[in-house]
Amino acid sequence: MKERSDNRKVLSIREGETREEERPVVQETPLTIFLNGKELITLLTTGDANRELAIGFLLSEGFLNDPRCLESIREDPSSGTVDVNLSGDLSIIEKLWGKRTVTSGCGKGATFYHVLDSLHARQTASGVTVSPSRIRELMDELNRLSGLYRKTGGVHNCALADIESILVFRDDIGRHNAVDKIYGNCFLENIPMEDKLLLTTGRISSEMTVKTIRMGVSVLISRSAPTSLALDLAERAGLTVVGYVRGGGMVVYTGKERIKV
Amino acid sequence: MKERSDNRKVLSIREGETREEERPVVQETPLTIFLNGKELITLLTTGDANRELAIGFLLSEGFLNDPRCLESIREDPSSGTVDVNLSGDLSIIEKLWGKRTVTSGCGKGATFYHVLDSLHARQTASGVTVSPSRIRELMDELNRLSGLYRKTGGVHNCALADIESILVFRDDIGRHNAVDKIYGNCFLENIPMEDKLLLTTGRISSEMTVKTIRMGVSVLISRSAPTSLALDLAERAGLTVVGYVRGGGMVVYTGKERIKV
Repeated sequence: MKERSDNRKVLSIREGETREEERPVVQETPLTIFLNGKELITLLTTGDANRELAIGFLLSEGFLNDPRCLESIREDPSSGTVDVNLSGDLSIIEKLWGKRTVTSGCGKGATFYHVLDSLHARQTASGVTVSPSRIRELMDELNRLSGLYRKTGGVHNCALADIESILVFRDDIGRHNAVDKIYGNCFLENIPMEDKLLLTTGRISSEMTVKTIRMGVSVLISRSAPTSLALDLAERAGLTVVGYVRGGGMVVYTGKERIKV
Repeated sequence: MKERSDNRKVLSIREGETREEERPVVQETPLTIFLNGKELITLLTTGDANRELAIGFLLSEGFLNDPRCLESIREDPSSGTVDVNLSGDLSIIEKLWGKRTVTSGCGKGATFYHVLDSLHARQTASGVTVSPSRIRELMDELNRLSGLYRKTGGVHNCALADIESILVFRDDIGRHNAVDKIYGNCFLENIPMEDKLLLTTGRISSEMTVKTIRMGVSVLISRSAPTSLALDLAERAGLTVVGYVRGGGMVVYTGKERIKV
């Protein structure tokens, strides 16, 4: 994997003592996604998994739904671009292209309401169950895997896991990007996401919940707090949300039947 | 201020012990901004300062530059909308409207490149200096002010300060929203931002730096880590960036001449 941090000369101040030193800083770089030859969006990312991130973004935002529609992906590292060509029903693309201009934010869903619409039908139906001690072990594993976080403090970590162990790990300066990289990876590698768990160090906003539900994942686990709207959506879709997994404790907010206590 | 949290029935699990309890969860609600009658964007927010947030967003993204151009702001709480009317040179609005479709992300700048363009001219010229012990005191004050964070764990805090104390405090589920609320408040209340300090609990991405430079603030202070691109932009604009203000220490990344050690 390519180097994803720079060393910077800093002043480090501690207990009245000041010294010059070098500190690693996480890299942030723009990635522009072209869809069928048209510039779609520029994401700010660590820049290590641009193809996955582009595909994950298109999946999350509803541009790509059917694997058979993916014609080609071409990355040009020198210009920081990924070109994706999709076939099939292009009316959905045109429709989203129009809507996308309407909604964006941070907590920013590039396409908020139409995503909500598309979720009405979805239900997280899997019968997977998991114990609190296994959740703790998986979260410990997530933290162990994050070399870049330990080095720079500037990324969020995310992982897809089954009830045994972590299957896919990704990190990024954006917590949404980290999820999209996993979504893109699973799509490109044909890794099923149903019956799986998604772990994140980031807060659980509505957008995080929406992505998780779209992936078909059953259990969303975070070391941080959820929002009211995230929980409303989770409840509607039957998604289990576990927050505050830290310091030996955790809080189960929705889908409690999947937690074996 | 209106209530910004809901109580939810949860399972709290700690050291093998499980109990049902109620926990407060931060509210997340959509806010749709209309500009000159046209739907511009939907932000996800705590919903307590919608006028400020709308104006701050328009300022951050370059739609609004001159106070004389602000014709009216109308909030409709029942529909979660703010209507803003601007006069003056509307060609910039049309231009950004087109560009906005191009760039959005999370770390998502709704308008990334044109913002970079607009920054080339800017320099943070103020001669303000601040001592490390004052920075620590201001960060302690920021943490003390955050009732909603202590209650729900689901928001980022942000404040504008002079070298004496905090002048404006805001929080939000999105760290960018919290900054935009402050930007909007200062604009609406005619509070000068030059010679000021901006404190945040969030990480310092390029977008955070861009907002700070646009505000004219001289010193950006965070308890978290910066990214490489954020530091590149800060250096170019002469902005002081101090990160990792926690546990008695801090790291000065750029603009070291403003830190009186």
